[in-house]
Amino acid sequence: MKPLPLLRNQEVLEQPANQETLTRRYTDEALKFISDHRDRPFLLYLAHTFPHVPLYASSENRGRSRRGLYGDVVEEIDRSTGEILAALRSAGLERRTLVMFTSDNGPWLIKNQDGGSAGLLREGKGSTYEGGMRVPGIFWWPGRIQPAVRIGLTGTLDILPTLAALADAKAPADRSLDGIDISPLLLEGQSLPDRPFFYYRESDLYAVRKGPWKAHLITQPGYGDKNPIRHDPPQLYNLEQDPSERFDLSAQQREVVADLLREVERHRSSFKPAVSLLDATIAAPTTN
Amino acid sequence: MKPLPLLRNQEVLEQPANQETLTRRYTDEALKFISDHRDRPFLLYLAHTFPHVPLYASSENRGRSRRGLYGDVVEEIDRSTGEILAALRSAGLERRTLVMFTSDNGPWLIKNQDGGSAGLLREGKGSTYEGGMRVPGIFWWPGRIQPAVRIGLTGTLDILPTLAALADAKAPADRSLDGIDISPLLLEGQSLPDRPFFYYRESDLYAVRKGPWKAHLITQPGYGDKNPIRHDPPQLYNLEQDPSERFDLSAQQREVVADLLREVERHRSSFKPAVSLLDATIAAPTTN
Repeated sequence: MKPLPLLRNQEVLEQPANQETLTRRYTDEALKFISDHRDRPFLLYLAHTFPHVPLYASSENRGRSRRGLYGDVVEEIDRSTGEILAALRSAGLERRTLVMFTSDNGPWLIKNQDGGSAGLLREGKGSTYEGGMRVPGIFWWPGRIQPAVRIGLTGTLDILPTLAALADAKAPADRSLDGIDISPLLLEGQSLPDRPFFYYRESDLYAVRKGPWKAHLITQPGYGDKNPIRHDPPQLYNLEQDPSERFDLSAQQREVVADLLREVERHRSSFKPAVSLLDATIAAPTTN
Repeated sequence: MKPLPLLRNQEVLEQPANQETLTRRYTDEALKFISDHRDRPFLLYLAHTFPHVPLYASSENRGRSRRGLYGDVVEEIDRSTGEILAALRSAGLERRTLVMFTSDNGPWLIKNQDGGSAGLLREGKGSTYEGGMRVPGIFWWPGRIQPAVRIGLTGTLDILPTLAALADAKAPADRSLDGIDISPLLLEGQSLPDRPFFYYRESDLYAVRKGPWKAHLITQPGYGDKNPIRHDPPQLYNLEQDPSERFDLSAQQREVVADLLREVERHRSSFKPAVSLLDATIAAPTTN
């Protein structure tokens, strides 16, 4: 395997990348970007490498937390986030900047102590049980978003319609979007409209949620056993009363199961699969 | 089985007890006790029946939480606690009253949705894994205890020495106490002295903890399988890096295991079992 390079656009900065420096360097780039763009609207997307395994913390942050290397890494990301919020404040941008903090999946359980924890949620990364799918969602916008815990079923599919609405921009109209504008929840604490949520693994629909109810059509551990298990009737859990998905209620709640299966049919009949960007022929990017 | 009576001292108030009223009635008794004793020092021990199974919430509180009956019950206890704190404030006692809120064990897992959850901790009530042993510890004393999260290894064995120290009273000197005065942690955030912690199931020593390390000599699920499993070498977990007790490090950390086993020997050689109060002949209580 070739050693991993660190790139800026198409240029290799170093190879192998010194991963202990990544959180610091990404943060410095973000701070510079904010400073360079303070006079006009901008979108900054900062995708940290960590806490993806293999974990690296800077020498300055290593050995500081009680939770071992994983804790050191998380604390370093927390410090990075604090520096970014401070930079927005000192640039006078905090009242016209929405900051979102989230993740793409739950803990990578087979990585043991380095993989994190989903707390009371079942399973982890790669699985469509809640431990694989539920992630933090933190929104910061002084003066517009009140400090509060909001309860609502939302996900990263909602980011595009939400940002478009807040920026008074038009979302693309040549396709139907799966997400909705959640700014009424963020800004005013309004309830989100009821809607079913669909859980995919690659291109297969594994589960559906509506309100507190979640039905699993197929389950499979995140890693390890490669064989998906099809459930007929689907497993049924009440996520409010049983957030750990321990007690299958499909035999007692046949009408709920039937309703969720109707949602699946509606979804399937309305759904046009697109070619994955990974499978499409992509024009070579131009170097800057 | 005879229906459960509700007693005041030796007097049966009703049989069967109407359990939906218990949290309300216990709270009212506590409020009256505070009001009756506001002019002199007092100890109020309020041991709620719930969230022990079977669960009952008052009609006023039933169906209000998102977590089902268990959530309703917990919310009713939370309201009860709020009423007691408010009563202390309105009696002008809050600056000379220490309030402690804790529990006796983790969740009763075989009771499914009614049994609660230990979050990321392993196992539950009846087990000496952390899910059975770790409980909330909340201390309230306006003006003396600052709002803060304090980290220290402590348990209900420490309550007697702590209350004795704070009340300037002498703890009993005719026996050696297993607990220590933790008021330096509560009042000033000082670290507690390092000390080993011993986990018993009935009269058998199952586990020992020192700092982040916990060794299990014997394990047994809280309920179900009745056969204790003896471990030689003991299972060894680092509770700071692995709070869920998933990764046995006994093979890699032989010196830590040896140190913990020396603590067990020291403990056993210093320990004189007492007759259980349940086995002793107890004088019949006098009625008041």
